[in-house]
Amino acid sequence: MMTSDLESNPCRKRVKKRIKNACSVKTVKKRLPILEWLPKYKTEYIIQDMIAGITVALTAIPQGIAYALIAGLPPEHGLYASLTSGVVYVFFGSCYNVTVGPTAILAAMTARYVSNYSTDFAILAAFLSGLFILFMGVFHLGFLVDFISMPVISGFTTAAALQIASSQLKSLFGTSGSSGNYFAESVYNFAMNIRTVKLWESVLGFSTILMLILLKKMGQGCKRTDGFIKRTRWFVSLCRNAIVVVIGMIITYILKVTLDSEPLSITGDIGSGLPDFTWPPFSTTAGNETLNFIDMLSVLGPGSVAIPLVALFESVAIAKAFAEGGRIDATQEMIAIGLCNIIGSFGQSMPITGSFARTALNHDSGVVTPAGGVTKVLLIIFALTYLTSTFYYIPKASLAGLIITALFTMIDYEIYGRLWKNSKRELLVMLITIVVCLFYGLEYGMLAGVIIEACVLLYNVSQPTVNVNVIKTDKVAITIVPLIDSVSYCAAEYVRKAIIKASLNSSNTVIIIDGTNLKNMDFTVASNLMLIVQDLEKKSRLILLYNFNLGLKNLCLDINPFAVHKFVHASNILDHVSEILPNNI
Amino acid sequence: MMTSDLESNPCRKRVKKRIKNACSVKTVKKRLPILEWLPKYKTEYIIQDMIAGITVALTAIPQGIAYALIAGLPPEHGLYASLTSGVVYVFFGSCYNVTVGPTAILAAMTARYVSNYSTDFAILAAFLSGLFILFMGVFHLGFLVDFISMPVISGFTTAAALQIASSQLKSLFGTSGSSGNYFAESVYNFAMNIRTVKLWESVLGFSTILMLILLKKMGQGCKRTDGFIKRTRWFVSLCRNAIVVVIGMIITYILKVTLDSEPLSITGDIGSGLPDFTWPPFSTTAGNETLNFIDMLSVLGPGSVAIPLVALFESVAIAKAFAEGGRIDATQEMIAIGLCNIIGSFGQSMPITGSFARTALNHDSGVVTPAGGVTKVLLIIFALTYLTSTFYYIPKASLAGLIITALFTMIDYEIYGRLWKNSKRELLVMLITIVVCLFYGLEYGMLAGVIIEACVLLYNVSQPTVNVNVIKTDKVAITIVPLIDSVSYCAAEYVRKAIIKASLNSSNTVIIIDGTNLKNMDFTVASNLMLIVQDLEKKSRLILLYNFNLGLKNLCLDINPFAVHKFVHASNILDHVSEILPNNI
Repeated sequence: MMTSDLESNPCRKRVKKRIKNACSVKTVKKRLPILEWLPKYKTEYIIQDMIAGITVALTAIPQGIAYALIAGLPPEHGLYASLTSGVVYVFFGSCYNVTVGPTAILAAMTARYVSNYSTDFAILAAFLSGLFILFMGVFHLGFLVDFISMPVISGFTTAAALQIASSQLKSLFGTSGSSGNYFAESVYNFAMNIRTVKLWESVLGFSTILMLILLKKMGQGCKRTDGFIKRTRWFVSLCRNAIVVVIGMIITYILKVTLDSEPLSITGDIGSGLPDFTWPPFSTTAGNETLNFIDMLSVLGPGSVAIPLVALFESVAIAKAFAEGGRIDATQEMIAIGLCNIIGSFGQSMPITGSFARTALNHDSGVVTPAGGVTKVLLIIFALTYLTSTFYYIPKASLAGLIITALFTMIDYEIYGRLWKNSKRELLVMLITIVVCLFYGLEYGMLAGVIIEACVLLYNVSQPTVNVNVIKTDKVAITIVPLIDSVSYCAAEYVRKAIIKASLNSSNTVIIIDGTNLKNMDFTVASNLMLIVQDLEKKSRLILLYNFNLGLKNLCLDINPFAVHKFVHASNILDHVSEILPNNI
Repeated sequence: MMTSDLESNPCRKRVKKRIKNACSVKTVKKRLPILEWLPKYKTEYIIQDMIAGITVALTAIPQGIAYALIAGLPPEHGLYASLTSGVVYVFFGSCYNVTVGPTAILAAMTARYVSNYSTDFAILAAFLSGLFILFMGVFHLGFLVDFISMPVISGFTTAAALQIASSQLKSLFGTSGSSGNYFAESVYNFAMNIRTVKLWESVLGFSTILMLILLKKMGQGCKRTDGFIKRTRWFVSLCRNAIVVVIGMIITYILKVTLDSEPLSITGDIGSGLPDFTWPPFSTTAGNETLNFIDMLSVLGPGSVAIPLVALFESVAIAKAFAEGGRIDATQEMIAIGLCNIIGSFGQSMPITGSFARTALNHDSGVVTPAGGVTKVLLIIFALTYLTSTFYYIPKASLAGLIITALFTMIDYEIYGRLWKNSKRELLVMLITIVVCLFYGLEYGMLAGVIIEACVLLYNVSQPTVNVNVIKTDKVAITIVPLIDSVSYCAAEYVRKAIIKASLNSSNTVIIIDGTNLKNMDFTVASNLMLIVQDLEKKSRLILLYNFNLGLKNLCLDINPFAVHKFVHASNILDHVSEILPNNI
């Protein structure tokens, strides 16, 4: 009895199958991909993975520091984020060339909480984002990201780039005053302090930008597999972020030694050594207030959903871009990114996700396995242990230049023209997203975009195409109203009106609701259909329900059992019209 | 130049047409239906309209008082609501048998604000609801109501009935203590005060219920057009609400005269005379606080959307039920209900809408034109002027009995079984709606139901059916992926995965994306499609885009101009397969 019950119950069967699957060797390998690739690791991979690891680290270290500064965090938190996530991803990552760590956008989304409250919010955001992403991975909820349309993500990214750029104006020009929670505020604050622009900071900042552009150009057309000169150009170009930061450091150091003062604003003290491994902060002190977990959650508000969604979106977009037509194990990627954030938050990491720029770098450097991340992690540990006193001299203007240059590639300039030509509605959604992002905050802009798109979508679903065909025979006009695929409750009234309108167009017509291609309709639609049948019957009008499938027929008859003689089945609606029609017509 | 510009601009043309239309005689008649029916009024209608007006008034007066009590308002506000809305509807109403006035559900939705703050909230709610409904009417936004599915409205109505019943327990049993903001609270409060149940109140309350049921049964099978005895039974049955209230009054009065005390809880003082015509309250005093307009709005919160939506839903449902297959001018109904509320709020009215019970009564009484409302209005004026001192003696237990009996017909008992058999998912949505309504409040329950349904709908849209067909010819396997109707951004990833999966199933297959029946796709879908084309090209796989319409083709080519040779057009995908395929296959 028990067994047959189990057999007959598809839900239980599925659960049983799931449990069985979850314990199989295949699943364990799938969920811990290191077990898959490490045993197959060949010694010839080492050099390639190491080179890739070094180039990535040479970008990850300055970017880690820079992104921590975007978030308003002490610089070491950016390095911690690269470190812990790097370690976790080696074990759990399924895409060999994806590199994880802090990103400019996530840093910008965290900045508001850090500047208004405390550092703890960045770490809690990482923890909660991790839980959220892990949950989405385990329960296959990754499709949620599909509800962020391209125009919304483009608008969001543009706005994020502008917000980050505006937040760096202060460092780039060495002005006084505070930055801001969002673009409009940062620009306003900068404009208010425009008289405090410092010449040498500005020169250094813009020189950094110029140098980065030139170094990038230098590497164009050069590949890893080219001859020595081209290869060197390629490598120098890849390491351009580290190079400009080192140059900046040297200038500052020389100025300090020669002038015995620090004329440039510098990064300053960086916490040395590895992060303590401890619980993420579930309470914090901001100003004179102590905030408990619930208070912190309500401070994070929409950010606690928007940050993980953006993290997920970035990682999915990267995986997709580098999949090259192969399949991605989206679930495993979510689990990996989720664990990176959760475990990272125990090591005081800010929120992390896949980094587009560093993944491209990793790919270009010819990485073969996730082991490339090991070299990166070792170099970060080295930096945290021995180089923090050197990093003290990194000028903020260099970092600002580095950040702003990175933003150029983030903005999709072509989408504006494409949308203008093809879909002004989507362009409008994008512009609304941008405006809300810039004047209210990134998470609200994304939310606005997603909600507007969803509303438009729901509206479209509620107004399906109903192609009414009228066929005139000798005796009678036949009005055929085909219902197609799936009709939802919100379209019930629209469909009802279409049918009533068709019935009013000609007083001597037979209405045939053609359900041949109708797969599904819900209770509301069925009720409305039965209401129409009843109403037309009262007016002595003939209405037939043609070729409805059994499930839908039963649903209708459950609502109105007297409609049973209205249902007809025939292979061709026209050939059999005389059979379908009763004799009295 | 100007003219041709106007001609060529469809938007301007439409606006011009609209303005022209708005000023035509036809439109004025449409928007002020009294101009249509009054000139055609015949003297033989008078008797029928009067009888209908009297029977409706005999229900509207006790129900008006009862519903004001549900809302926690002084009883005269219920009568004011029937009065002003009655007058306005005579001018603007387009459905001759619809009767407007306060309803139990709207009263229940208002109760929370009145009991926690002040009477002013009910009047402001009427004003805002009116504006909202008028706005929806003018801008053709009535379709918003379609997003409330039948299971949600059924669950909501059931919960509303239970909440109203629970709020009347206090009056029915004469217990002490306060009522509650929602079902769970009312039941809890009643249970806490169960020891204070008063015998005579309970006897009167239950006798009222019993009497109402018997009087209703008495009228069954009798019609207005029957002989004298049956006709009298019919009329007595229709006036049952007035009868039980009058009996209750007489009992109270006799008890007062004989015992010289008032053992039963009575309605008490009712403001006499017509309402003052003044501005609705844009500020109020609650407790010791003065609330301005913004404070009042934030107190109303979701109620300011939920109350008008429910009002609109009720009136649309009634119009639909009594349309009998005819067309309804939904816009005009919305304008009428909107104006009834707005103008009503100047006469201290609570929110009003179409009343199902009184509309049915009006219909059964044989009303011919909206002029039936005139008699009703005159009787209410008479009651307000001369009968308020009599109404003083209406026992609350009678009103509670009357209210509870009216609720029996509100609940749709059959929907549970129907949903259990046909759609457990919808049953679940309904139960969630009920639970949230009962334990949190009516507006939140409705909101929860609507949001859940919308999310399910969006999920379904994001997972469209993609029927992949594989056709094997001598040389090659052809995998056809048809895209149908409209593919939305949220389905872009799902479709991409389906195509990639199809391409991986066989290494020697030509992928044909069949766009013959594709009417629309947005930018996200087109971008994803171009990504697939690019990815498969990298893997030297052949992919063709078949019979895409020009707009969609241009959109794709705008994203990736190199895909131009991927687009093919042919009348039959199989007949022309050799033409479609390049020679190298």
